[in-house]
Amino acid sequence: MAVNLRAPDGALLHPVAGVELGIAMAGVRKANRKDLLVMRLAPSANTAAVFTKNRFCAAPVLLAKRHLRRPVRALVVNTGNANAGTGADGLRRALEVCRAAADALQCEAEQVLPFSTGVIMEPLPVARIVTGLPQAVGDLREANWLSAAEAIMTTDTVPKAASVRVTLSSGQATVTGIAKGAGMIRPDMATMLGFLATDAKVGRGDLKRITLRVADASFNAITVDGDTSTNDAFVCVASGQGPAARSKRDLKTLAAAITDVAQQLAQAIVRDGEGATKFVTVRVERGRNEAECRKVAYAIAHSPLVKTAFFAGDPNLGRILAAIGNAGVGGLEASRVDLYLDDVLVARAGGRHPAYREEQGVAAMRKPEFTVRALLNRGRAAATIWTCDLSFDYVKINAEYRS
Amino acid sequence: MAVNLRAPDGALLHPVAGVELGIAMAGVRKANRKDLLVMRLAPSANTAAVFTKNRFCAAPVLLAKRHLRRPVRALVVNTGNANAGTGADGLRRALEVCRAAADALQCEAEQVLPFSTGVIMEPLPVARIVTGLPQAVGDLREANWLSAAEAIMTTDTVPKAASVRVTLSSGQATVTGIAKGAGMIRPDMATMLGFLATDAKVGRGDLKRITLRVADASFNAITVDGDTSTNDAFVCVASGQGPAARSKRDLKTLAAAITDVAQQLAQAIVRDGEGATKFVTVRVERGRNEAECRKVAYAIAHSPLVKTAFFAGDPNLGRILAAIGNAGVGGLEASRVDLYLDDVLVARAGGRHPAYREEQGVAAMRKPEFTVRALLNRGRAAATIWTCDLSFDYVKINAEYRS
Repeated sequence: MAVNLRAPDGALLHPVAGVELGIAMAGVRKANRKDLLVMRLAPSANTAAVFTKNRFCAAPVLLAKRHLRRPVRALVVNTGNANAGTGADGLRRALEVCRAAADALQCEAEQVLPFSTGVIMEPLPVARIVTGLPQAVGDLREANWLSAAEAIMTTDTVPKAASVRVTLSSGQATVTGIAKGAGMIRPDMATMLGFLATDAKVGRGDLKRITLRVADASFNAITVDGDTSTNDAFVCVASGQGPAARSKRDLKTLAAAITDVAQQLAQAIVRDGEGATKFVTVRVERGRNEAECRKVAYAIAHSPLVKTAFFAGDPNLGRILAAIGNAGVGGLEASRVDLYLDDVLVARAGGRHPAYREEQGVAAMRKPEFTVRALLNRGRAAATIWTCDLSFDYVKINAEYRS
Repeated sequence: MAVNLRAPDGALLHPVAGVELGIAMAGVRKANRKDLLVMRLAPSANTAAVFTKNRFCAAPVLLAKRHLRRPVRALVVNTGNANAGTGADGLRRALEVCRAAADALQCEAEQVLPFSTGVIMEPLPVARIVTGLPQAVGDLREANWLSAAEAIMTTDTVPKAASVRVTLSSGQATVTGIAKGAGMIRPDMATMLGFLATDAKVGRGDLKRITLRVADASFNAITVDGDTSTNDAFVCVASGQGPAARSKRDLKTLAAAITDVAQQLAQAIVRDGEGATKFVTVRVERGRNEAECRKVAYAIAHSPLVKTAFFAGDPNLGRILAAIGNAGVGGLEASRVDLYLDDVLVARAGGRHPAYREEQGVAAMRKPEFTVRALLNRGRAAATIWTCDLSFDYVKINAEYRS
């Protein structure tokens, strides 16, 4: 059901020098599926990450935050079990996984970042993961990104990966990334899971700044159902094996490339949103500040009534206006708001535009992709987010998952 | 599909002296259905009301707020068209309806409160309403509450009405009310439409205070889909034809009766929620203040993942914990939260309770009614709200409505 999204061509995913990926079928929850990923990083690598703001953040998230203080040498990712809502026992289990990976890779447990995704509130089957580790380590290769994208899927129907190359002053740098996620998607600092690497040499501070900015412009600008996962994490690795990015200009070029890859991945998550049949860009302009534009955009994107109208391809525009009115923006004057569907002006000054004809709205919304654009007309700020519709299949997938 | 909800027995709805109701089939949107209600109030009546906080509040809401400054003599309610998102033209049309009603009832247009519900952003068909008015006025009777409840239905499947009698120091008082609403339900100060009347003599100030308090304990404590309507209104009339409520004790007795009727009506809206198959009470206890308890309760009640798990009768408890963690309560410690399904302790100190068995959760959630109870364990405040599940039929109803 993914909207204009195909599995990436593995040949187009550029390897990143200094970053190897290995996959295993560990049987975490189900047999015979890739469910374990190990990423080994060269000692020259710098790593930055942003994590979920959910107060029930998972044990691996707590541990990964702690382990980020040291230079990171490896990431271990399992699907099938989120190790969330598992208390102190969950922390112990996540640490056991780090220890086993550290033994296999000859580093310290504190240099391993653990990631888990899957069912919440069930004990992590550590033994199965540990048993699967040698297979994953034996599989470590730089040209393994597509297989890695497959290994981190849960309700995803399509693996998600993207890759670009940019020219810095001292040579060509590569940026490649993978992500997973289809439901429980309303990242707050990060997506379900996104891993991105560049071979460029980037200082820790610069990498951290870029990562935060990129997260806001990509994974923090998407929503499927407004539910922020307990396990969200977006990790950005600069392996240091390629050209250096130190000048302002190079950092800017590299940040743009990282944003490009991150946006492709984030949008892929929405295109593959649970039950999605539409990919919708929501752009809010002329607000007082970006925060209020985002607030309005999310109010539109989270309204079940708006989302079911998207599904129906029905330009029930009143629902969009009602959502804007509900966004909780102080002093917003409804009588100044203009609304567009793609390029069609459907509402002006808070009311239906006299020239608007229903057929125009239907034509826009029947397409698999379209843009809802709201003008608040009270400032110069803007924000863009991406979302999908709410279909029968969203309910089906989430009523049947786990049972 | 309504959950444990039947049409009220008209014989059990006590008339309120000084409040007459008349119904007509005006063909506002569809022919041959009751879609126009006139309520005539005795000159002795006091009226208080609370309205939607949606910034796109409808023309009739704007006008009703203005007209509330004068003693109210009549209410005119139409379904089929919300007269919302209609700008200045919508205000003119709402005023025309008030004028026509005032002519028919021999009062001032400024003494008529207009209410509209139905499709948003389409011009109100004033001529049809004006043509229907004589029929409604000719039908005015005190014993007409059930027919009135039917006349204000839109996607409701069951008319909603409730009635109680209480003894005040100077005699027996009656409280009777009707409401409508099934979708776009997350009232913020009021429900879609709720009209409640008592024959008790109550001062304007007292009535206003009671109305605000009652709204918070009833219509403001329910949610179907988190969408706040543009037309929400809750009106409370004290006709002054019955016993006086002036002492603190009498006011308390009367307020309790009004709360009782309002809660019955509010819960009826949830039981008849679009596509609802479950009626769920969400109670959050031991919070620092009521506001944070409500925040957590609404985070649970609005999560599409939690709502689809309700639909499936699947105790996917991690989704409830994740929703609590997302509520945006500062400093909330996940490791202190306990969670109950009815009387079953399912999670303790943020993790699954060791004694909890899946069958217990399934047994609780397979019932048409159950309670989710979260203990934050950081204070003494509590809050209760009522919600329903998210089913295939919610999507069906809202994808097909209007089209």
